[in-house]
Amino acid sequence: MRPVITLTTDFGLDDPFVGIMKGVILNIAPSAQIIDITHGIEPQNIVQTALVLEAAHTYFPKNTVHLVVVDPGVGSDRRPIAVKTKSATFVGPDNGVLTPAINSTSRVYELTNKKYFLDSPSSTFHGRDVFAPASAWISKKTPLSKMGRKINDPHILQLPQPEVKGNVISGEIIYIDRFGNCISNISSEILNATFQLNDSLTLQVGKTRIHDFASHYSQHNKGDIGCLINSWGKVEIFCRGGNAANKLKCQVGTSLTIKKN
Amino acid sequence: MRPVITLTTDFGLDDPFVGIMKGVILNIAPSAQIIDITHGIEPQNIVQTALVLEAAHTYFPKNTVHLVVVDPGVGSDRRPIAVKTKSATFVGPDNGVLTPAINSTSRVYELTNKKYFLDSPSSTFHGRDVFAPASAWISKKTPLSKMGRKINDPHILQLPQPEVKGNVISGEIIYIDRFGNCISNISSEILNATFQLNDSLTLQVGKTRIHDFASHYSQHNKGDIGCLINSWGKVEIFCRGGNAANKLKCQVGTSLTIKKN
Amino acid sequence: MRPVITLTTDFGLDDPFVGIMKGVILNIAPSAQIIDITHGIEPQNIVQTALVLEAAHTYFPKNTVHLVVVDPGVGSDRRPIAVKTKSATFVGPDNGVLTPAINSTSRVYELTNKKYFLDSPSSTFHGRDVFAPASAWISKKTPLSKMGRKINDPHILQLPQPEVKGNVISGEIIYIDRFGNCISNISSEILNATFQLNDSLTLQVGKTRIHDFASHYSQHNKGDIGCLINSWGKVEIFCRGGNAANKLKCQVGTSLTIKKN
Repeated sequence: MRPVITLTTDFGLDDPFVGIMKGVILNIAPSAQIIDITHGIEPQNIVQTALVLEAAHTYFPKNTVHLVVVDPGVGSDRRPIAVKTKSATFVGPDNGVLTPAINSTSRVYELTNKKYFLDSPSSTFHGRDVFAPASAWISKKTPLSKMGRKINDPHILQLPQPEVKGNVISGEIIYIDRFGNCISNISSEILNATFQLNDSLTLQVGKTRIHDFASHYSQHNKGDIGCLINSWGKVEIFCRGGNAANKLKCQVGTSLTIKKN
Repeated sequence: MRPVITLTTDFGLDDPFVGIMKGVILNIAPSAQIIDITHGIEPQNIVQTALVLEAAHTYFPKNTVHLVVVDPGVGSDRRPIAVKTKSATFVGPDNGVLTPAINSTSRVYELTNKKYFLDSPSSTFHGRDVFAPASAWISKKTPLSKMGRKINDPHILQLPQPEVKGNVISGEIIYIDRFGNCISNISSEILNATFQLNDSLTLQVGKTRIHDFASHYSQHNKGDIGCLINSWGKVEIFCRGGNAANKLKCQVGTSLTIKKN
Repeated sequence: MRPVITLTTDFGLDDPFVGIMKGVILNIAPSAQIIDITHGIEPQNIVQTALVLEAAHTYFPKNTVHLVVVDPGVGSDRRPIAVKTKSATFVGPDNGVLTPAINSTSRVYELTNKKYFLDSPSSTFHGRDVFAPASAWISKKTPLSKMGRKINDPHILQLPQPEVKGNVISGEIIYIDRFGNCISNISSEILNATFQLNDSLTLQVGKTRIHDFASHYSQHNKGDIGCLINSWGKVEIFCRGGNAANKLKCQVGTSLTIKKN
């Protein structure tokens, strides 16, 4: 079976950085299947990276290696780490990007053994010199215990959490996708725990009020604003055939509330 | 032999959607070779999708599975379908995107068997929950007859056709590429059927007249506008070393005529 | 072992051109591992292509085939060539893009044998009709001597070279990456040959003077401008947590000097 290695970075695709990392991986693990999750993370946006990783990683085969390079502190003394969960191994800088993985395991290792890096690593491109080679070695089943030492103080990100006060849930937009759909941090679990199945609900964002949830985009007329539980299990605001973020002037961080009518 | 699965979507590459679909595919068909045709289809542009698919599919190995997700009606009752031609299988929504395949076969199936979908499909991301898993199963030679039922009323798109009146062919621009080349719906076949080999021809678009066809871009001087039969076998307007679409203010839908001098 | 073929083009990712080339390759070499270096080369920018190729190629496995299609003269009589170095084979138009490879070998071949092209090549898409099939055949170990004839006059690009006058090195910006880092043509070798290890140096670009080199980005405060030797071994100007190119109004071609204080 060919091992799978995914890549998530803020490198974009115009520079040769991503291609170079793939070359390094194939030098060490020639049979690796390399899959891009995205290289379009906003430069140095650690929170966005953690959210994308959380949404994506569960869909990959068991034992996938997830390589994440969003690394504003490259070259400083922030540690390179690997995190082993039941289903996968995550590799990246110890700056919070791997929070979704760290929250589910205690098996976090600092990568210290230079045998598994390129010779003379640069101080500006650890994706190439440290993380890509380490990921390739992990995909070849090198034990983390040989590659470094276990640590118990990895950096954990405080992701923005929704609040429930009585009959009102307050949250915020955490991600806007290509279509302008605005994804909030309010999950279906919180909705179900706060309200009854048949409750009539109103979502408010800015001055816009949306009454009741749709089950899919096509339920609304073209140009109408609606909300639904999306494919990540989160409350999402959409504009049928349009761009909700532009129409509502929503950004990451914009507040919203959901309450019972 | 590793089965080939191609992807054509309007998802862009900044969100993790494409990576997630690839994870789903590799879970089911670990040896699949996944190739991106493009994820840069204009959001929800079904006509553009059909044109791109038509230009691309013939260059892939026999038995390739072409997965197409441009799906404004996701979650509604539009059907998920698979289309089997002599050389390939096409998978996508029944909204016209698969027209080029449907025109060459009667083997069109509605995908109904949930065994070949992910469990509890969402209503907003059938690329992940329906089309990617179905494509992976097809690449493993699952018969379409097991995955659904044959239908004879798939949605067929009326692609814009050129008209011939006497000595004049009227057509329109159907695609503008990255370089600003303007590709029309006038094919070399129509040209050859309408004119003689040695006829001197004039192409007119807006107020610009182009006399005679070039055989390649470099035949013109830098900045000059020309036309030729392009690599899709269509009449294309180009600007040597420049951007014809910008220079001529051409858009998809702009009319053009070709006539004998 | 699966042969590796890399792609470097100015085709972008919105059109189906890159996907089509991959289809052609897989038809001929089904086990090829195809890796994108970048498709974001500025349209027809030959110098940028050569620089990207130089930075990237050394990180790929031995015997990789590097396919490069930045080809303003497509369809004219510029020759298609293949260049065999100790570690890899490079395929592309004879317009200078392969200069980094040509500088290290005399094994340059014009590809003339149409048996290794697609039938009836178009005059506008040699990436599909000539270069992709030739690369696939080369990855299957077809000898270049069967594919064409050795030539000794390939086109060589004069890449901008830095100048040393006494205690001053003058160079220019040759590449700006996604983060706005400005990469110059001044290499660490020239720095080491011109100055002593402990010399205090000043880099000047426009009216901005940067004193002393950093060892990594995080050494500076947010928003500060610094310089360092980057991962390509070149002098690079950066803005910690910002975009140096925007801040300093630097472009490709902007001059800079480095001198001893």
